[in-house]
Amino acid sequence: MCSNIRPFLLVNNNKRVLEKIMRRYSSSTGSAQYETLAVSVPKKYVYHVELNRPAKLNTFTPAMWKELSTCFSTLSETPECRVIVLSGQGKHFTGGIDLNGFIENASKAHELSDVARKARFLSYLIKEYQDGITALENCVKPVLAVVHNACVGAGVDLITAADIRYCTEEAWFQVKEVDVGLAADVGTLQRLPKVIGSASIARELCFTARKVPSKEALDIGLVSKVFSDKDSAIKEVLEVAQTIASKSPVAVQVTKQSLVYSQSRPTCEGLEHIRLLNMTMLQSDDLSKAAISQATKTEAEFDDL
Amino acid sequence: MCSNIRPFLLVNNNKRVLEKIMRRYSSSTGSAQYETLAVSVPKKYVYHVELNRPAKLNTFTPAMWKELSTCFSTLSETPECRVIVLSGQGKHFTGGIDLNGFIENASKAHELSDVARKARFLSYLIKEYQDGITALENCVKPVLAVVHNACVGAGVDLITAADIRYCTEEAWFQVKEVDVGLAADVGTLQRLPKVIGSASIARELCFTARKVPSKEALDIGLVSKVFSDKDSAIKEVLEVAQTIASKSPVAVQVTKQSLVYSQSRPTCEGLEHIRLLNMTMLQSDDLSKAAISQATKTEAEFDDL
Amino acid sequence: MCSNIRPFLLVNNNKRVLEKIMRRYSSSTGSAQYETLAVSVPKKYVYHVELNRPAKLNTFTPAMWKELSTCFSTLSETPECRVIVLSGQGKHFTGGIDLNGFIENASKAHELSDVARKARFLSYLIKEYQDGITALENCVKPVLAVVHNACVGAGVDLITAADIRYCTEEAWFQVKEVDVGLAADVGTLQRLPKVIGSASIARELCFTARKVPSKEALDIGLVSKVFSDKDSAIKEVLEVAQTIASKSPVAVQVTKQSLVYSQSRPTCEGLEHIRLLNMTMLQSDDLSKAAISQATKTEAEFDDL
Amino acid sequence: MCSNIRPFLLVNNNKRVLEKIMRRYSSSTGSAQYETLAVSVPKKYVYHVELNRPAKLNTFTPAMWKELSTCFSTLSETPECRVIVLSGQGKHFTGGIDLNGFIENASKAHELSDVARKARFLSYLIKEYQDGITALENCVKPVLAVVHNACVGAGVDLITAADIRYCTEEAWFQVKEVDVGLAADVGTLQRLPKVIGSASIARELCFTARKVPSKEALDIGLVSKVFSDKDSAIKEVLEVAQTIASKSPVAVQVTKQSLVYSQSRPTCEGLEHIRLLNMTMLQSDDLSKAAISQATKTEAEFDDL
Amino acid sequence: MCSNIRPFLLVNNNKRVLEKIMRRYSSSTGSAQYETLAVSVPKKYVYHVELNRPAKLNTFTPAMWKELSTCFSTLSETPECRVIVLSGQGKHFTGGIDLNGFIENASKAHELSDVARKARFLSYLIKEYQDGITALENCVKPVLAVVHNACVGAGVDLITAADIRYCTEEAWFQVKEVDVGLAADVGTLQRLPKVIGSASIARELCFTARKVPSKEALDIGLVSKVFSDKDSAIKEVLEVAQTIASKSPVAVQVTKQSLVYSQSRPTCEGLEHIRLLNMTMLQSDDLSKAAISQATKTEAEFDDL
Amino acid sequence: MCSNIRPFLLVNNNKRVLEKIMRRYSSSTGSAQYETLAVSVPKKYVYHVELNRPAKLNTFTPAMWKELSTCFSTLSETPECRVIVLSGQGKHFTGGIDLNGFIENASKAHELSDVARKARFLSYLIKEYQDGITALENCVKPVLAVVHNACVGAGVDLITAADIRYCTEEAWFQVKEVDVGLAADVGTLQRLPKVIGSASIARELCFTARKVPSKEALDIGLVSKVFSDKDSAIKEVLEVAQTIASKSPVAVQVTKQSLVYSQSRPTCEGLEHIRLLNMTMLQSDDLSKAAISQATKTEAEFDDL
Repeated sequence: MCSNIRPFLLVNNNKRVLEKIMRRYSSSTGSAQYETLAVSVPKKYVYHVELNRPAKLNTFTPAMWKELSTCFSTLSETPECRVIVLSGQGKHFTGGIDLNGFIENASKAHELSDVARKARFLSYLIKEYQDGITALENCVKPVLAVVHNACVGAGVDLITAADIRYCTEEAWFQVKEVDVGLAADVGTLQRLPKVIGSASIARELCFTARKVPSKEALDIGLVSKVFSDKDSAIKEVLEVAQTIASKSPVAVQVTKQSLVYSQSRPTCEGLEHIRLLNMTMLQSDDLSKAAISQATKTEAEFDDL
Repeated sequence: MCSNIRPFLLVNNNKRVLEKIMRRYSSSTGSAQYETLAVSVPKKYVYHVELNRPAKLNTFTPAMWKELSTCFSTLSETPECRVIVLSGQGKHFTGGIDLNGFIENASKAHELSDVARKARFLSYLIKEYQDGITALENCVKPVLAVVHNACVGAGVDLITAADIRYCTEEAWFQVKEVDVGLAADVGTLQRLPKVIGSASIARELCFTARKVPSKEALDIGLVSKVFSDKDSAIKEVLEVAQTIASKSPVAVQVTKQSLVYSQSRPTCEGLEHIRLLNMTMLQSDDLSKAAISQATKTEAEFDDL
Repeated sequence: MCSNIRPFLLVNNNKRVLEKIMRRYSSSTGSAQYETLAVSVPKKYVYHVELNRPAKLNTFTPAMWKELSTCFSTLSETPECRVIVLSGQGKHFTGGIDLNGFIENASKAHELSDVARKARFLSYLIKEYQDGITALENCVKPVLAVVHNACVGAGVDLITAADIRYCTEEAWFQVKEVDVGLAADVGTLQRLPKVIGSASIARELCFTARKVPSKEALDIGLVSKVFSDKDSAIKEVLEVAQTIASKSPVAVQVTKQSLVYSQSRPTCEGLEHIRLLNMTMLQSDDLSKAAISQATKTEAEFDDL
Repeated sequence: MCSNIRPFLLVNNNKRVLEKIMRRYSSSTGSAQYETLAVSVPKKYVYHVELNRPAKLNTFTPAMWKELSTCFSTLSETPECRVIVLSGQGKHFTGGIDLNGFIENASKAHELSDVARKARFLSYLIKEYQDGITALENCVKPVLAVVHNACVGAGVDLITAADIRYCTEEAWFQVKEVDVGLAADVGTLQRLPKVIGSASIARELCFTARKVPSKEALDIGLVSKVFSDKDSAIKEVLEVAQTIASKSPVAVQVTKQSLVYSQSRPTCEGLEHIRLLNMTMLQSDDLSKAAISQATKTEAEFDDL
Repeated sequence: MCSNIRPFLLVNNNKRVLEKIMRRYSSSTGSAQYETLAVSVPKKYVYHVELNRPAKLNTFTPAMWKELSTCFSTLSETPECRVIVLSGQGKHFTGGIDLNGFIENASKAHELSDVARKARFLSYLIKEYQDGITALENCVKPVLAVVHNACVGAGVDLITAADIRYCTEEAWFQVKEVDVGLAADVGTLQRLPKVIGSASIARELCFTARKVPSKEALDIGLVSKVFSDKDSAIKEVLEVAQTIASKSPVAVQVTKQSLVYSQSRPTCEGLEHIRLLNMTMLQSDDLSKAAISQATKTEAEFDDL
Repeated sequence: MCSNIRPFLLVNNNKRVLEKIMRRYSSSTGSAQYETLAVSVPKKYVYHVELNRPAKLNTFTPAMWKELSTCFSTLSETPECRVIVLSGQGKHFTGGIDLNGFIENASKAHELSDVARKARFLSYLIKEYQDGITALENCVKPVLAVVHNACVGAGVDLITAADIRYCTEEAWFQVKEVDVGLAADVGTLQRLPKVIGSASIARELCFTARKVPSKEALDIGLVSKVFSDKDSAIKEVLEVAQTIASKSPVAVQVTKQSLVYSQSRPTCEGLEHIRLLNMTMLQSDDLSKAAISQATKTEAEFDDL
């Protein structure tokens, strides 16, 4: 019977409702909001999102997928947030999916007796997981990921949806999914080849599930820079973030929208898209503010967006 | 008159029919099947396809295009085949298209008196050649190409349709087509820029037809690794193949299907595609087998696919 | 009122008309044709287009966008032109957009009282600028860009629409747009990620507007080669151009058409496109000329295209 | 300043949260759930959604867009719902958008001082409205719309996202948007030409905003059938709904998914999509149940989906 | 185990091989070629394909899907065939899929123990069936379908892939699939809405599986004309076919290629496609022949294509 | 040699230059501007374009293709033009392409000795013709075509690019191209099936080249209305035009842009496109003007666009 789906979703929804209520009355950026994420504002306009299950290697629980979705879509609409840095609490960035949560969901599917009903259930589940990752791409603010130590399975799906990737020397990456008997289905197969630009290497990593050390990650273009350790990485990436945050939010966010839209489309379609955006955005006050700032070598103060 | 096409096709078809009959009664993997290819099974689940005209630099004859098509679509549907290694017999990987065969076909076109009829004939011919190459991409099993010495013209078309490329130190590559007065029309112009990720270099190679040595091939991402010689290359690539073959065929083959589909489409379409695949594939027994294998550190035994 | 647009366009059009008349009666390749570009023919079949406002850092004026459009579409249809080398007169390749011209246009938009009318005006303006850049891509002859010293803002838009990029050691690149308060809207966001193949780096450059020195440009695949200075760069690139110019124009130009068309489309669509092109082009005399040339090791003489 | 957006959204979200809580504890289908919609279950598996602001001509308030979104996405995931009939309470189907709500939102936009910030606000608003309409299309259960008397503006957007349209004799339709100074932006321009199949008529209706009586609506294919009055329309459409509800939910819902996906895509892509769906769905028990039902002329009892 | 697939396919392939051999040595158009189809040449250049299982209501057996594929791809490449008329032997056009054959295949799938392996098997099966239908669309010669009496299920899939549809007065149509527990997966859901142009009616027919009489078929645009009985229908349609066959094969076949390609693509892509076709085809002799024919009011004699 | 192209194009360009100069100094709407078109302004904001070669059945000369392109792109940018009515001077709408002009161009192609060079020449020629037709679609103002008497060949290409079609009782239509030995290549094959919504009828008309009388044109949706004679047709269509012209130009023109863009794209892409347009356009003053106009039942006065 399919009736198993409903209670499951109901419980989830109610929980979500309660979370939302609590969140609204807590401070708007504190970690209190989320069970699996920590959100802070280390610098003006710069938000820091941390995977926050350090005792469990920051593995992805069912709650985490939902919270990623909520967190990044909320930040996308939070005017005072201009750039987001993403890292993990503790030693490891993330060990990938949490097996207990995964088995729990899988067993729910197995209780359904018919292939079509199981498929429908799984389809919704995959969609929910995908939405958690895609929330980074849909977020109009740039997301800078800082990987430290392990970045496994779902972790790779996550960072390939970020805009820029950095890592520490001891970091390593693993497209783990084939080892657990499934094809990666929340983004790596779609985004990794576009991120690193070499289909040859992307396919090798996806087929063999071998570990990629930080140096190779740099060589193949998976990360933009390698830092000696986590502290210095966070420190320097926050500075990059600050630089970006100091620029016109209109300029930065429209840049991201255009880059994401144009990625896998014929150039002419991307050009039409930016034309529609900029016929409006060029009427913004940010242009003259930036022009004056450039001319006078002073810092511009842009309104939030 | 167009009547010249028919006899040509009839002869070909009859020959194909005879080949097919012979093939069914010969051993299912032996070289006896094919005139221009040698197929062997060096390791369980790992098939080795060799271009087999070493006396003629493994150049592409009309028969070879057809046999590539038949061979890779057959292996795609052969359950006990899980990974394919592709190389050439003899010293050279391939010298490209066989000029005699090409001239023969060209002269057939010239016998037709009308431009439209010639164009129709050529259109079918190009389609047949393209299908020979695309068969590697349509094959749901990963194809690992090992290039040794010359890889010229059609050879580059061929390997860019493989999943991963390796080569030996003395290997060299040449997008030769402009030198013989035509634009490459069986895949290089479509796939090379996506394989190496740099439009700048891809265009230079296609416009100048200059030779690319193995070291540069590695630097630009055309190959994933360079080996000292052919023997060690084959040996090590067979080991990579064995590693891939030991994993769940569901996981590996769905991974390939998703990578190929998503390559030049917007990310959201690729995500929908893998969702449709995995709502079924996550119901497979391979998941629990792989989970147990990972937990117990024992090798899983997966059914063929 | 929208009536401000008309006079502006009228004046422009009349000027264009006069330019066109003058151009027709001047020598067909001399710099006399253009106000902002210099066109010469240093070698048979090889055209050299130079940005020609050295006193103003070759910055982009309203006239320059239009002339780029005219120049490259004219060369595309000029049979005796087979390859184009693009560089700047003077020390710098280009300092990007000319602020005076930009402000002049912006103030025209501001005279319009309604957002919708401003948007329409800006939409036409962006389209005109985009067309100036896209003219390089639509030109069926290969365009080789040689960057020396500064290549800022619109300069990056320009060179990413070229086929191959080279630079000198002291060259540097800057995606400047966010610094002046706008998202790049004439091509960089669409083309840069495809040119260099790494989304990670492309986004960093677009968000931070930091300068990229020549060495990094080579490492990330933005340029194919770095030369010690401008003279040797021009000299050697002209030789590459000559090599390309010596080949069949049918082969070279169809190669470009296919590469451009296939760039962001599924492979099967690119294959159909080249099949339609080559069912005609393989009937050309260039094939037999090239075949004889290859066989006899003599230079072929191809007709113009 | 942009800070006006936040309070607005906050208020809305809180309201949504409260609504959700209330909904969960009320009967799952009763009108108590929604402020602007009435949901009932007149027949087993058949849900009836009514626009429920009869005193206000069922005009669209900000709440209604959200509730349409919630209602149809909830019904999409409600297993016991198999078909949905959509009509309006009272005499008129709908008078279109509620001007007070629209002005309220518009004034919020006008409080923002910068064009870019206004545009961002409006973009979110249009998206929210579009999502309310698209929820009918995304709902995997067939939606049968019954139009009675006025169907104006947003009403046409709404019914063109339904699967089948019926109306009463006195019904009339009006693509009203140009009359209020804007281009329709929540679906009519995208869906109407595909629904009626004639671009000629679709454009005339959109440009002139003229009223279309029921008879013409039938002739141009906007509706499938005209009934004498509302009562008989509802009665007979509920019977059609019951017929559909008696069939395999797998068959019916996959049919809708495939029809929606294939609508504006090349046929080959639609065929691949249904192949991926049916490689699973043909494994369902519904097939044998339906086969037995057909053979024995007895009614099949299918599980919910 | 998946090994059940192989023997099945092997047997099929051998059978195909034998069929092919037999076919080559029989008359090239006689019914001897096919088990389930009858092919004749009632008029010069006009081929008549008949579903040929009259004793079984011309239901679709596994063999028929394959033979449709072979027959229409062969006729596409048969120069002397210029137009094809399609009808059924006996009273009924077709009763749809043959249940015995379908159950046989379904039971093969059920022998496989794993969902993923079943899905792979079903995926190949659906593809083979789809290819049988799509062969009509891929055939470059126009296909005119004449429906008489029943046209059920797969029959509708078949005729919507034809170019023009005619029927007799007593004909009726039924999109039967939902009644047998599955979504139509061989073309109706993709093509029917495009054929009749009204999404409203298409969806009603697909959801309710109700019968459509000939008069309604004409009204909704499913057929172009209704004839009083089968004999007069065949007679008059053969005359339409003869008219088409008398025209330039280049003109007619390129017209079909362009119509099929452009159906669901943006107009600009369709225009580029026809431009690539006609830059060749306008060089054909057919133009001057047709011009002379028009000028002199004499019949032109065109070469085969 | 290809040199034949150049003089031809040069002459043309010079002529175009002269035309442009003359045009600027003549009255901006008078027929003096064009050789083959007459442009007048019968009502405020309503422009009337007439094919103006009545002595030659308004057949399409090389000049007419160019002038259509110039005329409609100029009117698209002419603020005071809001709607365009298109008809022919004299009895016939148009007899299609002028054979003399066509033969002249064809003979130019034949002077070229190589297939590839001919193809390039023809490709440019077709493009120029296509651009003449597509100019109607790219024009952001609605185009209402009034067909009287003959509308043959290129005439059908022309009117299918208009927004709405009307005709007189004695009007007839003919997709003539197959009769002159070529596939229609300037728009009919792309647009006709979308205009009339029935693929069945569209293909019949394209394959048989039979004449369609006005009554059938109405029945199949090719025209929206049939008028008794030309005078009353022009009179009443001018009134429709006036109605459209009285509405907000922002509303009307954005409506057209959205309809054209969305025609053959998935609905979600069309919705994103209109969202980008309207996030700007909803900030226009036209909204409040129209709202006041609706509320006060007075005519609004909108600024030009």
